[in-house]
Amino acid sequence: MARALELARTPGVPLGPNPRVGCVLLGPDGTTVAEGHHRGAGTPHAEVDALARAGRHARGATAVVTLEPCNHTGRTGPCSRALIEAGVARVVYAQSDANPVAVGGAGTLRAAGVDVEGGLMVEAARAVNRTWTFAVDHQRPYVSWKLATTLDGRSAAADGSSRWVSSRAARLDTHRLRGLCDAILVGTGTVLEDDPQLTVRDELDAPLPPERQPLRVVMGLRELPAGRRVLDAAAETVVLRTRDPHEVLAHLHRRDRQHLFLEGGPTVAAAFLRAGLVDEVVAYVAPLLLGAGHPAVGDLGIGSITAALHLEVTDVAVLESSSPDEDTNVRLTMTPRKEGS
Amino acid sequence: MARALELARTPGVPLGPNPRVGCVLLGPDGTTVAEGHHRGAGTPHAEVDALARAGRHARGATAVVTLEPCNHTGRTGPCSRALIEAGVARVVYAQSDANPVAVGGAGTLRAAGVDVEGGLMVEAARAVNRTWTFAVDHQRPYVSWKLATTLDGRSAAADGSSRWVSSRAARLDTHRLRGLCDAILVGTGTVLEDDPQLTVRDELDAPLPPERQPLRVVMGLRELPAGRRVLDAAAETVVLRTRDPHEVLAHLHRRDRQHLFLEGGPTVAAAFLRAGLVDEVVAYVAPLLLGAGHPAVGDLGIGSITAALHLEVTDVAVLESSSPDEDTNVRLTMTPRKEGS
Repeated sequence: MARALELARTPGVPLGPNPRVGCVLLGPDGTTVAEGHHRGAGTPHAEVDALARAGRHARGATAVVTLEPCNHTGRTGPCSRALIEAGVARVVYAQSDANPVAVGGAGTLRAAGVDVEGGLMVEAARAVNRTWTFAVDHQRPYVSWKLATTLDGRSAAADGSSRWVSSRAARLDTHRLRGLCDAILVGTGTVLEDDPQLTVRDELDAPLPPERQPLRVVMGLRELPAGRRVLDAAAETVVLRTRDPHEVLAHLHRRDRQHLFLEGGPTVAAAFLRAGLVDEVVAYVAPLLLGAGHPAVGDLGIGSITAALHLEVTDVAVLESSSPDEDTNVRLTMTPRKEGS
Repeated sequence: MARALELARTPGVPLGPNPRVGCVLLGPDGTTVAEGHHRGAGTPHAEVDALARAGRHARGATAVVTLEPCNHTGRTGPCSRALIEAGVARVVYAQSDANPVAVGGAGTLRAAGVDVEGGLMVEAARAVNRTWTFAVDHQRPYVSWKLATTLDGRSAAADGSSRWVSSRAARLDTHRLRGLCDAILVGTGTVLEDDPQLTVRDELDAPLPPERQPLRVVMGLRELPAGRRVLDAAAETVVLRTRDPHEVLAHLHRRDRQHLFLEGGPTVAAAFLRAGLVDEVVAYVAPLLLGAGHPAVGDLGIGSITAALHLEVTDVAVLESSSPDEDTNVRLTMTPRKEGS
């Protein structure tokens, strides 16, 4: 299973909304007959990939696979059926597939007389597909909220100027994190005030090709004038005329988006926080003092310290500046603390 | 000299405003004749301590001392004179003594025919007495400003409640830093609102004895009612009826205070920041969101991002909580960046 997980983690795949899956076919003597992994939507699943390589040697083999074989005919046929037809004798999998359209593979295999065992190294398998697993479990995308703030909690000065609160190293790091997500969201207010392009750019400041860009999402009721950069051809964009975070996440879930990077201003951030729909906070703290200006977070309806929203610090990184003119920023990664903890 | 610096760093001494000094007397053959170090105001200086141990063996010796021998009769006689009378042939020192009352020792020694060399390992020697050196150089105490803030720059919730923004680990760490200073300052506003005791307490929450406590300083024009904890007998207190940071620092300098721990609220902090009289910022960032409430820093007269006060991050520490109920706080230590850097 460790080898199957390694195959699942093959860098750069899959593109698109599918989970990363690896599969190893073992012969009756325990030797490896074939390996396979999934390379993205429309390409064979890991099991089918391995079966194709094994050919007739699959008969009587044990398939070790990181995710329960699917029971679903999408762009590819159901893996449970392919395993049965190839004569595989035993299937060992890590994570169950709770995805409603794919569920039931283990049952189909058992009904056909295949020996099935699930749950081996399940936590490691869930970690390989952290946001996919979250989206299947919660039927909505995982939400990472990015916050750039001065030491005194300001996102911009009194006159609205904010270029740049964050250092260049922090901005590069933000692009890296954007690139790990499949949707980036701001409110109409941010589009009107800052006109961001919301693309992923590499270290040389070149944008990724449009098909590699996360979906750009704008939420809110205000009109967007033509010519705003978020509406250009650099990436796909959807404008959702709502203020409701639940509605936004439901829309993104229907579009198979599993990881939303929330970059909205204080109003959008506060709406998600108040709805309990922030799963991770990534804060870039710049060692600046403004003493006044725009608060980085809007009203959360919290009046007393006992009602404060407590976060668990999961990572602290010092983003050293590459130039003496630049500030050293500190990145704090946090998750909301459970109620009562 | 390395050994003399080691002696200077002898833990626990000196108590009081004097610098830490170490001295090694070497015989003509290079062997150590005697060692000495200063133990605090009213006790012999390091050179005199070493001379007393050496007795007649001091004649013809080389004195290696971390600070230029003093030329001043205070509670003890001038060390330059004592070295001459003991027949020391050569003096090698690290840091020059720029203290106006003590200056001139090297000249006195040279005039008496002693071979004198200064500047050996001077940076290491200055580091041993960082705040003493700062106070002599700048004729005022070094100012460390402590800031406790939520992630969104709040020091208290909208209703004023602030117990506790910081974790217990952060509060213990604050007591440790208070104990390294010789004065703690707040404004009258903080006394009226929070009634802090401003003492140094140990890990078992027991206060240090009054003679080991830093001087408590309250600045401001508002009347303090009797019974405020800062006026109790746990430590000495001075109330300065002024809003001027320069005046406060001049007073503390006259009282031989070299390291001020600024714990004032946003008004006092802003007054020191605006005057350019903050030399170090120690920020405890608590992973809390309030969304509203009291800002941790008052108006600094900064209207635009280009005028922001930039800090240099010199240390980042994660203060792990000892209990799952407590937040992990992050301590950022910073110094103001030089103009134009």
